[in-house]
Amino acid sequence: MCSKELKMWSRAIRSLGNKSKYIGCITAVGGCVYAGYDLTSSKVKLNFIKFSQQVTCLSCKEERSPVSISFMAAPVTSIENLLKCPTSTATKMELLIMEIQASVCRAIEALEGGDKKFIVDKWSKDNNTGGGVTCVLQDGEVFEKAGVNVSVVHGSLSEGAEKQMRSRGRNFVRHDDGTLPFVAMGVSSVVHPTNPYCPTVHFNYRYFEVTSADGEKTWWFGGGTDLTPMYLDENDVRHFHSELKKACNKHGNDLYPKYKKWCDEYFTIPIRGERRGVGGIFFDDVEGPDADSAFAFVKSCAESVIPSYIPIIAKNKHKSFTPENKQWQQLRRGRYVEFNLIYDRGTKFGFQTPGARIESILMSLPLTARWEYMHTPKLGSQEYKLLKVLKEPKDWV
Amino acid sequence: MCSKELKMWSRAIRSLGNKSKYIGCITAVGGCVYAGYDLTSSKVKLNFIKFSQQVTCLSCKEERSPVSISFMAAPVTSIENLLKCPTSTATKMELLIMEIQASVCRAIEALEGGDKKFIVDKWSKDNNTGGGVTCVLQDGEVFEKAGVNVSVVHGSLSEGAEKQMRSRGRNFVRHDDGTLPFVAMGVSSVVHPTNPYCPTVHFNYRYFEVTSADGEKTWWFGGGTDLTPMYLDENDVRHFHSELKKACNKHGNDLYPKYKKWCDEYFTIPIRGERRGVGGIFFDDVEGPDADSAFAFVKSCAESVIPSYIPIIAKNKHKSFTPENKQWQQLRRGRYVEFNLIYDRGTKFGFQTPGARIESILMSLPLTARWEYMHTPKLGSQEYKLLKVLKEPKDWV
Repeated sequence: MCSKELKMWSRAIRSLGNKSKYIGCITAVGGCVYAGYDLTSSKVKLNFIKFSQQVTCLSCKEERSPVSISFMAAPVTSIENLLKCPTSTATKMELLIMEIQASVCRAIEALEGGDKKFIVDKWSKDNNTGGGVTCVLQDGEVFEKAGVNVSVVHGSLSEGAEKQMRSRGRNFVRHDDGTLPFVAMGVSSVVHPTNPYCPTVHFNYRYFEVTSADGEKTWWFGGGTDLTPMYLDENDVRHFHSELKKACNKHGNDLYPKYKKWCDEYFTIPIRGERRGVGGIFFDDVEGPDADSAFAFVKSCAESVIPSYIPIIAKNKHKSFTPENKQWQQLRRGRYVEFNLIYDRGTKFGFQTPGARIESILMSLPLTARWEYMHTPKLGSQEYKLLKVLKEPKDWV
Repeated sequence: MCSKELKMWSRAIRSLGNKSKYIGCITAVGGCVYAGYDLTSSKVKLNFIKFSQQVTCLSCKEERSPVSISFMAAPVTSIENLLKCPTSTATKMELLIMEIQASVCRAIEALEGGDKKFIVDKWSKDNNTGGGVTCVLQDGEVFEKAGVNVSVVHGSLSEGAEKQMRSRGRNFVRHDDGTLPFVAMGVSSVVHPTNPYCPTVHFNYRYFEVTSADGEKTWWFGGGTDLTPMYLDENDVRHFHSELKKACNKHGNDLYPKYKKWCDEYFTIPIRGERRGVGGIFFDDVEGPDADSAFAFVKSCAESVIPSYIPIIAKNKHKSFTPENKQWQQLRRGRYVEFNLIYDRGTKFGFQTPGARIESILMSLPLTARWEYMHTPKLGSQEYKLLKVLKEPKDWV
């Protein structure tokens, strides 16, 4: 895109930005980055139609027909700032997490059927330090509670955080004014379906970038997707793991086994001697071989959420169940709460972050949960079979 | 009691101890300590009848008519060991916490009415390091879940724990074999009633004792009682606080204001900017002026649980309520779970203690809880009024 065109766009978007029913829009589809504007609340759907009917990727310059995906809200970073560095990893990641959020929310709304839609909260942190887009659907027929949160936070790294990162082998140089600029962003989601035969899914894909005094950027990715069934359907679990494996294998055959193991280790409730669920993949500190490859890997994983999970819900959402099945689901929800509040690093980090948005952090908790003293499933029952797998994780694919 | 009589008792109790329907029994009533045996499952109630119809206090030697209270189970420490030092603080505290457990459980069963009784689990830790008695009543008509737990644990203090205690100004001298013997005991309870107009109560009274190489004992008490209403009845809250104040005032007029403030500070959920409830009293490190006075203070507080709380439930248990009231109760239960799993020192300590009994620690969690995204009560509503008090604690008496 020539700089004249960029200026024209920026002007057009800026002129729309202040009117609440218009939002400036930028998106990424299939690795391409497009900008335009989105007349969301009008009957006329003008996605990415600008002055022609064609859209041009800001990165590879390829022309395509207008793309139809639209985000749940405008990205946290202003359109103008995104357009300044359309091919940077930070821009690509912010657009990816917005796209994943939108596609997961739309897939869930489609399964839900009726009129139930996600509520969308766009929020900002104080002092212009970023914000997020929190989407929640609760009390649905198919989904008891589903939350998909995007956050993009920037600021200066505290000395405590810097020290913690040093202990993980990272060295930064503070700027002359004592600051150490960082940006942290991610999409994170937990989906709790209503039917006890439909498993809960959690995923989180995140990017961290610190800029030292000499302008050198240190960056890394983290993430994962994991499944928590209340009843064990081995075919479903195999399907889930094989989709994750497929996504990983595009980037190296060693990745799935390594990150599957990490997932089993991470989602452990030591006080119970149980895993939270049947695992998936989990990784942190992915910082190579280069930014493009690492981003491509994270993108494949994030894009595998829908094919790995959605078919399981489509298959099981109409299964009949008893009040006892529902009660067991509620007890397992209680374990989910235990893991999230006691052990989950992301949640704990959120609690300790001044000014963190508690409602977005605790969006992961189920709508309802239950704790019974000394509940013990009957030997050989369906509930017992699940517990057995949670105590001894196995290989699924 | 002469040593011949003591031997005879011990023999009699020992001979009964192995038969499951008999338990050896020792108790404390009104500051007096008695021993005997209890034929709990027989129709004949033989509380503390031994060779005469009289019972003699092991401590003050006074004779009394047979007392009728019986514990929920035999104490953790064997009858013989308790009888070795009947007047030590550790023995008196263990008998006190057993007595408080029994009287609270009986009072709750009386309010419950019907056939619903506490289930009683007597449990032991590995390697002869103590154990406890966990009593739980769940899914009752008046009480959704009530748990009253006694634990008595002894062992050698780890270096980590010693270091932590040193930082609080306590110095011990390890024995020649490297050990540092301690005993920790307490009664702890959370009662979640069914009716949203009946508040939840929590209490905990505990004693810690460390014996240095020269035989010198360092000891301290901790404890408190606090109330968590879902709807604010100011008369109930005033009644609750005035009973606690009465108990404290017997031992010094400065105690209630000091421990009321501590309670407001302790039961805070920083991530929500709320207190868990309307407070009560909370104290730790009570180590003076002498063991007898400190024990007497703790005893008064523990004995104020029933008069402070039970009348509130008796008054409100039949109040009619709507599904909306119930839903609000469930949301407040969610906050209770947050405090207990994220902040409560006792719970966190339990999680970190190897071999801790998780079911007894998490007995404090409600039977059911709920989390809704961005739930906000209407301005001026009953729910709003409660939240206001939780955000700004006030003086009640």
